[in-house]
Amino acid sequence: MDPVPKIWSDTLADHRDSVREAILDATAAQVGEHGLTGVTMSGIAQAGGIGRATLYKYFPDVASILAAWHDRQVVTHLAELMEAAAKASDADRLAVVLRSYAQRNRRDRGDHHGPDLAASLHHAAGVEKAHRHLEHFVSELIAQAAARGEVRTDVPPPELAVYCVNALNGAGSLPSRAAVERLVAVTLAGLRP
Amino acid sequence: MDPVPKIWSDTLADHRDSVREAILDATAAQVGEHGLTGVTMSGIAQAGGIGRATLYKYFPDVASILAAWHDRQVVTHLAELMEAAAKASDADRLAVVLRSYAQRNRRDRGDHHGPDLAASLHHAAGVEKAHRHLEHFVSELIAQAAARGEVRTDVPPPELAVYCVNALNGAGSLPSRAAVERLVAVTLAGLRP
Repeated sequence: MDPVPKIWSDTLADHRDSVREAILDATAAQVGEHGLTGVTMSGIAQAGGIGRATLYKYFPDVASILAAWHDRQVVTHLAELMEAAAKASDADRLAVVLRSYAQRNRRDRGDHHGPDLAASLHHAAGVEKAHRHLEHFVSELIAQAAARGEVRTDVPPPELAVYCVNALNGAGSLPSRAAVERLVAVTLAGLRP
Repeated sequence: MDPVPKIWSDTLADHRDSVREAILDATAAQVGEHGLTGVTMSGIAQAGGIGRATLYKYFPDVASILAAWHDRQVVTHLAELMEAAAKASDADRLAVVLRSYAQRNRRDRGDHHGPDLAASLHHAAGVEKAHRHLEHFVSELIAQAAARGEVRTDVPPPELAVYCVNALNGAGSLPSRAAVERLVAVTLAGLRP
């Protein structure tokens, strides 16, 4: 008999990914419970039901796990924004995306019970890249809105994207959904022709 | 003869402070030369002409030195903003302060040759406090401008301050002074009644 059943070897690639996903899920749980600074390798292993040896095969240390976890969050978030954009009408698209980004910023911040995650991990290369994707995506939406005469054209769209993304990062320190709505309205007011 | 000359004991407190200042100056030089991640205790000691034993009496590690250095920068920056505010006319004050904040953000970023300092150190308690001071200061200026009818009154000044400070943090990723001027103009447009 084959020592490795075919069904196993077929799903080995999936399994590898599913272990990684399980590690990142366990990391999210640990961050929620103990805060960013309370996450440990053994805590993640235990929470995820993963052996320590396996864990270290995937990630050398807590910092790299947190970076991978935040990267996954940003990528997931970006996918959500793209989905929201696809569903919205042309005229609403930019506002819908900015509102979604801002409200998610507030929720993410609320989940951490600790230092600002984006700030702590901002320097990780993967995260920087994901943020550039986000700015690029927002820049495209702004260019489209500017072409329709809905957004000012005296400032290049990439600069307006930097403005929007940074202004809406402020949502993380606002106390309520209503305050975030006001932040979105003020940010959009800055974009008007 | 007194083993400690009077002139020395009189200036001991000053000296203590001047050693701390020298350490932070040496840190600035080291960050400029090697980037944030290239700063070491021995590098700082050497650059500042300070014995390692003395250095460790002031700070236990590089992270605490970087936090103290960034704190000093934020406090210095805040003092500059207050001075600029005092010199400006009522009508110009908010714009002058926001422009000064944004241009300094760009310069600071350019000096680091490495990961975003504010992001890396944002979690340090002293820095958080200094940022709250900054937001409070901007909030007061906004409230004064709102009372004169120059700024919208449908959003509370503290929320508008969060908007301004975050939007202008974007200056750190802009390529030129002109781009920062445009960012300031866009941010001010969001504040209009």
